[in-house]
Amino acid sequence: MTLFGKRYHPPGTPPGTTQVGDGSVASALSVTVADYDAQNLTLHRNVTLDACRPFITTEEHTWIHIDGQPTQSLINYLTDTLELHPLAVEDVINTGQRAKVERFDDTLFAVLSYPVKNDGKIQLIQFSLFLGGDFLVSIGEHSGALVEPLMRRLQDTKSRLRSRGCDYLFYLIVDWLIDQAFPTLEALGAQLEELEVRILDNPGKDTIADLHFVKRELITLRRCLWPQRELINDLMREEFFFKDETRVYLRDTYDHIIQSLDMLETYRDLSASLLDIYLSSLSVKMNEIMRVLTVISTLFIPLTFIAGVYGMNFDTRKSPWNMPELEWAYGYPAFWGLILLTVTGLLVFFRRKRWF
Amino acid sequence: MTLFGKRYHPPGTPPGTTQVGDGSVASALSVTVADYDAQNLTLHRNVTLDACRPFITTEEHTWIHIDGQPTQSLINYLTDTLELHPLAVEDVINTGQRAKVERFDDTLFAVLSYPVKNDGKIQLIQFSLFLGGDFLVSIGEHSGALVEPLMRRLQDTKSRLRSRGCDYLFYLIVDWLIDQAFPTLEALGAQLEELEVRILDNPGKDTIADLHFVKRELITLRRCLWPQRELINDLMREEFFFKDETRVYLRDTYDHIIQSLDMLETYRDLSASLLDIYLSSLSVKMNEIMRVLTVISTLFIPLTFIAGVYGMNFDTRKSPWNMPELEWAYGYPAFWGLILLTVTGLLVFFRRKRWF
Amino acid sequence: MTLFGKRYHPPGTPPGTTQVGDGSVASALSVTVADYDAQNLTLHRNVTLDACRPFITTEEHTWIHIDGQPTQSLINYLTDTLELHPLAVEDVINTGQRAKVERFDDTLFAVLSYPVKNDGKIQLIQFSLFLGGDFLVSIGEHSGALVEPLMRRLQDTKSRLRSRGCDYLFYLIVDWLIDQAFPTLEALGAQLEELEVRILDNPGKDTIADLHFVKRELITLRRCLWPQRELINDLMREEFFFKDETRVYLRDTYDHIIQSLDMLETYRDLSASLLDIYLSSLSVKMNEIMRVLTVISTLFIPLTFIAGVYGMNFDTRKSPWNMPELEWAYGYPAFWGLILLTVTGLLVFFRRKRWF
Amino acid sequence: MTLFGKRYHPPGTPPGTTQVGDGSVASALSVTVADYDAQNLTLHRNVTLDACRPFITTEEHTWIHIDGQPTQSLINYLTDTLELHPLAVEDVINTGQRAKVERFDDTLFAVLSYPVKNDGKIQLIQFSLFLGGDFLVSIGEHSGALVEPLMRRLQDTKSRLRSRGCDYLFYLIVDWLIDQAFPTLEALGAQLEELEVRILDNPGKDTIADLHFVKRELITLRRCLWPQRELINDLMREEFFFKDETRVYLRDTYDHIIQSLDMLETYRDLSASLLDIYLSSLSVKMNEIMRVLTVISTLFIPLTFIAGVYGMNFDTRKSPWNMPELEWAYGYPAFWGLILLTVTGLLVFFRRKRWF
Amino acid sequence: MTLFGKRYHPPGTPPGTTQVGDGSVASALSVTVADYDAQNLTLHRNVTLDACRPFITTEEHTWIHIDGQPTQSLINYLTDTLELHPLAVEDVINTGQRAKVERFDDTLFAVLSYPVKNDGKIQLIQFSLFLGGDFLVSIGEHSGALVEPLMRRLQDTKSRLRSRGCDYLFYLIVDWLIDQAFPTLEALGAQLEELEVRILDNPGKDTIADLHFVKRELITLRRCLWPQRELINDLMREEFFFKDETRVYLRDTYDHIIQSLDMLETYRDLSASLLDIYLSSLSVKMNEIMRVLTVISTLFIPLTFIAGVYGMNFDTRKSPWNMPELEWAYGYPAFWGLILLTVTGLLVFFRRKRWF
Repeated sequence: MTLFGKRYHPPGTPPGTTQVGDGSVASALSVTVADYDAQNLTLHRNVTLDACRPFITTEEHTWIHIDGQPTQSLINYLTDTLELHPLAVEDVINTGQRAKVERFDDTLFAVLSYPVKNDGKIQLIQFSLFLGGDFLVSIGEHSGALVEPLMRRLQDTKSRLRSRGCDYLFYLIVDWLIDQAFPTLEALGAQLEELEVRILDNPGKDTIADLHFVKRELITLRRCLWPQRELINDLMREEFFFKDETRVYLRDTYDHIIQSLDMLETYRDLSASLLDIYLSSLSVKMNEIMRVLTVISTLFIPLTFIAGVYGMNFDTRKSPWNMPELEWAYGYPAFWGLILLTVTGLLVFFRRKRWF
Repeated sequence: MTLFGKRYHPPGTPPGTTQVGDGSVASALSVTVADYDAQNLTLHRNVTLDACRPFITTEEHTWIHIDGQPTQSLINYLTDTLELHPLAVEDVINTGQRAKVERFDDTLFAVLSYPVKNDGKIQLIQFSLFLGGDFLVSIGEHSGALVEPLMRRLQDTKSRLRSRGCDYLFYLIVDWLIDQAFPTLEALGAQLEELEVRILDNPGKDTIADLHFVKRELITLRRCLWPQRELINDLMREEFFFKDETRVYLRDTYDHIIQSLDMLETYRDLSASLLDIYLSSLSVKMNEIMRVLTVISTLFIPLTFIAGVYGMNFDTRKSPWNMPELEWAYGYPAFWGLILLTVTGLLVFFRRKRWF
Repeated sequence: MTLFGKRYHPPGTPPGTTQVGDGSVASALSVTVADYDAQNLTLHRNVTLDACRPFITTEEHTWIHIDGQPTQSLINYLTDTLELHPLAVEDVINTGQRAKVERFDDTLFAVLSYPVKNDGKIQLIQFSLFLGGDFLVSIGEHSGALVEPLMRRLQDTKSRLRSRGCDYLFYLIVDWLIDQAFPTLEALGAQLEELEVRILDNPGKDTIADLHFVKRELITLRRCLWPQRELINDLMREEFFFKDETRVYLRDTYDHIIQSLDMLETYRDLSASLLDIYLSSLSVKMNEIMRVLTVISTLFIPLTFIAGVYGMNFDTRKSPWNMPELEWAYGYPAFWGLILLTVTGLLVFFRRKRWF
Repeated sequence: MTLFGKRYHPPGTPPGTTQVGDGSVASALSVTVADYDAQNLTLHRNVTLDACRPFITTEEHTWIHIDGQPTQSLINYLTDTLELHPLAVEDVINTGQRAKVERFDDTLFAVLSYPVKNDGKIQLIQFSLFLGGDFLVSIGEHSGALVEPLMRRLQDTKSRLRSRGCDYLFYLIVDWLIDQAFPTLEALGAQLEELEVRILDNPGKDTIADLHFVKRELITLRRCLWPQRELINDLMREEFFFKDETRVYLRDTYDHIIQSLDMLETYRDLSASLLDIYLSSLSVKMNEIMRVLTVISTLFIPLTFIAGVYGMNFDTRKSPWNMPELEWAYGYPAFWGLILLTVTGLLVFFRRKRWF
Repeated sequence: MTLFGKRYHPPGTPPGTTQVGDGSVASALSVTVADYDAQNLTLHRNVTLDACRPFITTEEHTWIHIDGQPTQSLINYLTDTLELHPLAVEDVINTGQRAKVERFDDTLFAVLSYPVKNDGKIQLIQFSLFLGGDFLVSIGEHSGALVEPLMRRLQDTKSRLRSRGCDYLFYLIVDWLIDQAFPTLEALGAQLEELEVRILDNPGKDTIADLHFVKRELITLRRCLWPQRELINDLMREEFFFKDETRVYLRDTYDHIIQSLDMLETYRDLSASLLDIYLSSLSVKMNEIMRVLTVISTLFIPLTFIAGVYGMNFDTRKSPWNMPELEWAYGYPAFWGLILLTVTGLLVFFRRKRWF
């Protein structure tokens, strides 16, 4: 995944162009269709797109879920058979969309993305939803974990899901997508705590890189979550598509997204604070290293000089001025006395500077 | 307590699921019920949940306080007997909620948290309130310090509390929860002042860690206080649940929360400024250490070289060019003269650079 | 003064508790009362609180000014005789209030604070005002500099103050309190300029502490000024208490507070920039010190080695391979030649690196 | 291109002065005119300005595109023949305008700029648009890549462009200009990723300069994109000039600009984080260098002193106190023993400090 | 000029005090009066204030321009003869005002300041304007560059200025004042670019001071420009004083101020980024210096020790254990072999660490 995780048509392409970039993408689509009301349920897995058509016109609620990378035939189907707006369908193809909700006449189009851990990195996967009066079309990849439990609940005649309309199903999907932020944040929180311990204890060379990766994840997640807040806010005001009882649930979802964002901002603050201690711990360590170097150097450099002096070869026989110390009976002990004096003086100086 | 201090149902759980995570949590609940008006007071401690039921239907104001971790039977009681909304009850179980207020038909649901010092760390404890026309249900842990004084005041027939409705009781509890921020902030302020003295005087190795912990506390407290500001603001506009005379008091609470936030932001600014002086004091110290090292080294290294020169063994007998200085009568005094000259020159240089 | 400069009742104290913390505070209050209109003036200094009572019911405007720490009797007087709201009176006792204005029926309550230099530190002193239809009660400490000139102006029958109502007097006091920010800011500006010169010229060890104290003062002042902006804004919309002609003057005060805040933010930006140059000047100085150390060390360390080599005692008589240089006729000059070469080479290297 | 990329008339020039700065700018203008409706199309390339005049009064939609630097005659033509407002025409000349839209009676004036890579640097090129009821005048340099595809689409009778009015053409141009941000951002994203790898792996001397240039590009791009957001927002509310069906498309363009800004802010955050790791990696490297220096120095400096001691020439014949060690049978092995002891001691010390 | 560039009356001075601080300021005022409409023009230079009086009551538009420091007589004239509001006149004296516009009954009062380069520093000069129905009073110092061209245009009967009212003249002056920001910003932009080159190439000791001064200028300019944005915004909504055709021009001025602010914020961002590279370039340089020191030191310090060992005087005659190496035939070549080995080993180590 590159940093610029957005697909786009080259500038100048006519708006609403619904051409799949590369014709060779022919990964099989997996289409599931459910036609239900409180009494009846018809459920078909792995049908063709054309087989879904008749269900839409029935009086029951119809949910068509399409899993896989959008193909040209899917795109044609969406624009031609389901008569969805080309601008919305274009957004389904050009993944990397910002979460948003748009209303086209009697269809509501919402696009969201949710974070998935992939190779230890957070990746955003796009999910598109078209909500009409009594149908819902959902398009997304790797969506088994979301769809299967819902299908099971559909089969349970006593579940609330059966007795309510497509707007409730729409809510359940959006709620699932938004709640994905919680485990992701929980994992990032654990990483931050582990980093905190490492930085306070004994920061290594790769600590800062690890901190950077957590920050990068937070930035990615932030780009995903902020627009979702707006999205839910917009949904809560869509009185046309959502019944009052469903909007109570959307308020709950709004609450969840606010909590996620709260947590996110807290983590950002914390990671900034961790960087500060990391940098200062480097400085502290440097100071300590330099202190040792300075103490040892300034202790021994003068001593080495004194020893060097008495290693000189001035000819003591030429004059009494030439290094008479060498001839003294107690010259050597005197030398050690001088050394001791120097060392003591320097140690007193260092102690006064509180260097050890 | 981990950084991610929120409990949540796994994504995909049906909304309003009121299942307590672990069935084994069977800590005994302590239920207190008070049925009162200006004239009468019935007060029962440690009753069963079922025993509270008849009081709600009486004409007097009823306060049911439940202390302890929510059990499955409590949850059932709340949803079934008291007919509280499942989404609200779900928030009671999933602690770590953001402070918020929500209106479900004729019940007002508020959830707050307040800071408690635990092992020197600030911990947030959740408190939930359900306010109806003439009843109040409050749920929270370790709430003795809040509830006992209120109970005593209830027993005093002349107290304002008796003559007013449940909305006033609701206000008193919220006010208590919010005022908890004051002693916490006072303690943090004292810590910051002590850190300021340490950093300006003689910062040690753990100073930065201590500063980081204060910052972390401030971040935690901030996450607790900001949503409470909104909450009080919302309450002040709830004309249905609060009488005008109670709303005057809520304005006072709003004032308190604003003052707490003010203080909090001041502390954040201060801790940022303290980090700046800490870092610069490290640099200053380093500069001083390096200056000493440099002065001593650059003084003695040339001297050692000169002494080294006259310790060489070039054979003076081979030619008059070979170290004639060693043969001079005043060679040794001349050496000391050279040393003196070098030292003086270097000292002048250092003085001009203002290094000592 | 501690960082947490707020007095508060312990959480759980009934709202509107007007109990002075410590009963021993019995510093004598100094009460002044002025009863005036355009024609008449009655002025009494150092009266008792009870003596003020009759003036309030007169048709003239009444100004009661109370100087000193609030005592229990004052508090009782305010709540009982003047019938001021207990919540407002509570705020008079609990000093350290955020500036705010509140309306209680037909009384306007405003609390402000103004900066005073004390021991070189800025201290905030609280001032409370109660404005009724034709009376004004003001409570504050050390307020001689404010009150005396106003009293003198009151005695001047031609002054605007006499011909206008209590709202104009209220405005004059608020204006004085807010204008106190100007001299304080002027002093801080001078300090910042002096710090700028010091930092650019020759920053010492205590420069950063001084800068920190200026920043701390700015933080304190900011906490004082921002709420005052809101306060004046609120006052400007109080059509009930202020006549149109007075509100023109309040607009002028609003202008002053905006200018103070402008200045304050400018100073904050500047002090941030000063910190940056301070830190970089430390780095520049360090670089210079290290450059000198490196130049001297790398010059002399190789030389010392060479001198050391020729100080070795390998026995030249054992073989012609053992230090034949020592026996050369020109060995010593050759040594100096080698030294010169090394030094020249290193100097060229340093020059190319622009190190001196 | 200089940092201040704005042309302006000297202060005091009468407003609406439409004087081209330098009369010598006589680069040939390339004028293209298209007169079209669903049935008919008249297309002329490289016509004179005067030749365009009759098309405007026709019933068909007229698009006049002018490519090149504005000349005096063009300016006169715009103000006199087309009767466009002088203030708007002044903005066409004074390039470096902030994107904006202004309404002059029955003409809408919009000015935008789009980023173009020039010599590896981002340069902003201004594009001006005048939209009337049935005409569109567009002025811009190097606009072949935009205009040619549109001309081709105009020649296609089945294209949406033919069947819709000038507002749709206006939208297509604005959409193209705004979509130019995508490839630019994609390139900057790639640069940032490459920088991230370099900084985490082995940052060189010019890494920081490269990072600075990316930041500078982001600043430039930001200055270009933010006002465009406002511009599109304004256009979406222009019900007079844009039909409902065109405004649906503008909503899509708004979405694109929001996505660009989102990306931009993400990149800014990332580049700030990269700077942090760069700076800390410098510190880490420094620490490592200093550690090696300190370990080697503190190991060998004491050793050199000891060796120096036994190189002294105190006369052992004068007294038994003078360096008796030199006369010992095992003096030399004892010396090495001492050395070994010292080295071991220091290594233990370093290991305890975790320095290697 | 000091940092606190504001004149103010001491707190407690009655509002609207129009007393010029120091009576000795008697710099001659230069008063110019122009009485004009489309047909007639009366222009008098250097008249007395009293001579202007009759013109105001004429039916023609009257412009009185006063150049110089306000004297007491001017102040009296403004308040008494022209009957301008004392609060506004007070602001004329107390220079250093924040740009603002205020409406006093039928007079509009505006005060602005514009940047002037003085001794290489930006200084703000205040300009005050009183706009009535058919008169304009303008007061400012050193205003020749503004007033003279306007006077010349007034004398041109065909100029738009003559045919329009005082509101247009007012706009022209405000536009001139605001456009002064462009050349100032252009100069600062050039300074920043020059600093960028210096910092990237070879930053010196005064680079950071120069950057600080640019930042300080930006801060000053910012304090001047931000309130002007509000001011123009306010003017645009003053339908009473400005005709619709003039308000179109004010919109253009608003555009200019927005562009200035845009530029300003860009410069602030850039100067922050420049500081970052400056600081990191210091670190890079330090690293390089330390690397050289470390390489040279760690190379030669061990060598010096080895040379020191063989300079010791252990008596080889006492035992075969005492420095037998000195007696070896190839002792000296072996010494050099050891040296070579050590050097090679260290160089390999440094190369592996990529230190040279």
